[in-house]
Amino acid sequence: MKAQKRLGKQTVQMAGDVKIIGNASIVGKKEAEGPLRNDFDTTVDDGYWGEQSWEKAETKFQKETINLAISKAGKSISDINLMFTGDLINQCTCSSFGARELQIPFYGIFGACSTMAESLSLGAIAVDGGFAENVLCGTSSHFASAEKQFRLPLEYGGQRPPTAQWTVTGSGMTVLSNEGEGMFITHLTTGVINDNGIKDANNMGAAMAPAAADTIITHLRDTGRQPEFYDLIATGDLGSFGMSIVRDLTQKNDLSLGQNYNDCGVMIFDTKKQDVHAGGSGCGCSAAVLCGHILKQMQEGNLKNVLFVGTGALLSTTSVQQGETIPAIAHAVAISVSK
Amino acid sequence: MKAQKRLGKQTVQMAGDVKIIGNASIVGKKEAEGPLRNDFDTTVDDGYWGEQSWEKAETKFQKETINLAISKAGKSISDINLMFTGDLINQCTCSSFGARELQIPFYGIFGACSTMAESLSLGAIAVDGGFAENVLCGTSSHFASAEKQFRLPLEYGGQRPPTAQWTVTGSGMTVLSNEGEGMFITHLTTGVINDNGIKDANNMGAAMAPAAADTIITHLRDTGRQPEFYDLIATGDLGSFGMSIVRDLTQKNDLSLGQNYNDCGVMIFDTKKQDVHAGGSGCGCSAAVLCGHILKQMQEGNLKNVLFVGTGALLSTTSVQQGETIPAIAHAVAISVSK
Repeated sequence: MKAQKRLGKQTVQMAGDVKIIGNASIVGKKEAEGPLRNDFDTTVDDGYWGEQSWEKAETKFQKETINLAISKAGKSISDINLMFTGDLINQCTCSSFGARELQIPFYGIFGACSTMAESLSLGAIAVDGGFAENVLCGTSSHFASAEKQFRLPLEYGGQRPPTAQWTVTGSGMTVLSNEGEGMFITHLTTGVINDNGIKDANNMGAAMAPAAADTIITHLRDTGRQPEFYDLIATGDLGSFGMSIVRDLTQKNDLSLGQNYNDCGVMIFDTKKQDVHAGGSGCGCSAAVLCGHILKQMQEGNLKNVLFVGTGALLSTTSVQQGETIPAIAHAVAISVSK
Repeated sequence: MKAQKRLGKQTVQMAGDVKIIGNASIVGKKEAEGPLRNDFDTTVDDGYWGEQSWEKAETKFQKETINLAISKAGKSISDINLMFTGDLINQCTCSSFGARELQIPFYGIFGACSTMAESLSLGAIAVDGGFAENVLCGTSSHFASAEKQFRLPLEYGGQRPPTAQWTVTGSGMTVLSNEGEGMFITHLTTGVINDNGIKDANNMGAAMAPAAADTIITHLRDTGRQPEFYDLIATGDLGSFGMSIVRDLTQKNDLSLGQNYNDCGVMIFDTKKQDVHAGGSGCGCSAAVLCGHILKQMQEGNLKNVLFVGTGALLSTTSVQQGETIPAIAHAVAISVSK
């Protein structure tokens, strides 16, 4: 069995059933005004959500989304054997504080905006490897906690370049299981770090696009699938500029991504009307789009096979200040309605 | 097979062979002056290691230790299917920059000072689950990059309370494999988050000790083993105060930890002579003690069964400033010379 699971240097195939038996998303006000407004489970108008700080609000997004995902899976907290969560805030505190009362065996992860894909990947490995029956996977981000930590005080009102993205306020959580009803996770393509020398922290789409293209190309080569196999290939979150770079880079490798290619950062906002420039970003963006929109579309029969490609820019304010380039990574998770 | 792997809510047993086939440690000057000086592979006198910043020096510690561990395992970089690394620096950049040129499928993790145990756990799951043949696991810390980020400028020369610990400058890395010669990872006990209301970031031993005691008690209960089964139960890194709290807490649960109990933070420094107060800390502390001292002792036949219990305080400077208590976690990894 062991040898069969590997399809290439980066790709593995699940041997047994790994199903997404529960998924939930909670987002903020701006996300609730976007095109996917009807897909999220709950929307919250108050950026503080009744808490004293944005970090505590983000923690609450995680907590509430976790409870909702477990409940939608028909499980209770004590049924969950393992959880993988992470976030953008220093030392991933929104995740550890979010998990504090749960008493679920906990592994913290960090993959920047690729965290949703990383958590699904590790969850799938744990379930398929026989280490857990039910695993919780997810992440969050918050516009205000991210701006405060990574950029400028909100009160400063700094102007943003057209390539900048808007950090999504929201959380997405899933419950994976080896039993029950749900979408199948069939393959994982784990990313390698890709650094193309981009230094502009306001152009993370350009920094991450080569990693996304590389992982998509590798996944298709390793599985022998054509891009058309997927009803949707969803990167997240490159924004509109990064998305067009992915199209260019895959084209140069003789792979044509058609209308089935989209980006979670582009999907979540109306980039023309919502003043978000290149689109959404933050761990919570691809998490909420997956757990809200994409899985709902699969449940309704509108999508059968989806390649979810989480993309992360692995920078920090310190690395930027020290003149470093931005390493990026992309992990692909293949999800199908049947196996 | 699946059901057999679980021995309790938090403990799993490896079904096949998961071996530590390579291990390496590189530490700084102060660590090289401590009692374990002869156990590390390389010691580096210059805190910058020829780099322009402490963060870049820590990155170099990771890179060089990775190369050494892979080489000592008799492998090349292209043999490694997966890597799990993390660190304390914001957004775990020492790990992502350390992995940037390797082109190894990469998962970033965050477990504060429990990172070494977390990386070993996830690596073991990946190998035993059949997802990888060879996995790299490890972490680092650096006294100066940690002080700068978490505490006060070094130039300030602030006085430290007796409960404070000294962040180790160093890195420890292992290569796990399903083939070859090495120590066996036999069981994992994954920690749940434990928060006992400690708010003092200068007393992290007290914050982490209940998590460590809880994981040790759970591990022994789940496996049916007595404390004496282990030649060494090594927590890391609680320091001398935290260590005595673990003794008290386990005693209250009718478990007596004898001379076979020690703490990596106490082992790495001469706490009386080296002015480190309660002992060492930082992800690199338990990593270097495991990959330098403990595994060497096992290779030399002086230790047969070891329970390595990585402990992490999941705080941030922001959470402390917002008056939050300190959540902690401990993951146990059982390592034996034979299976």
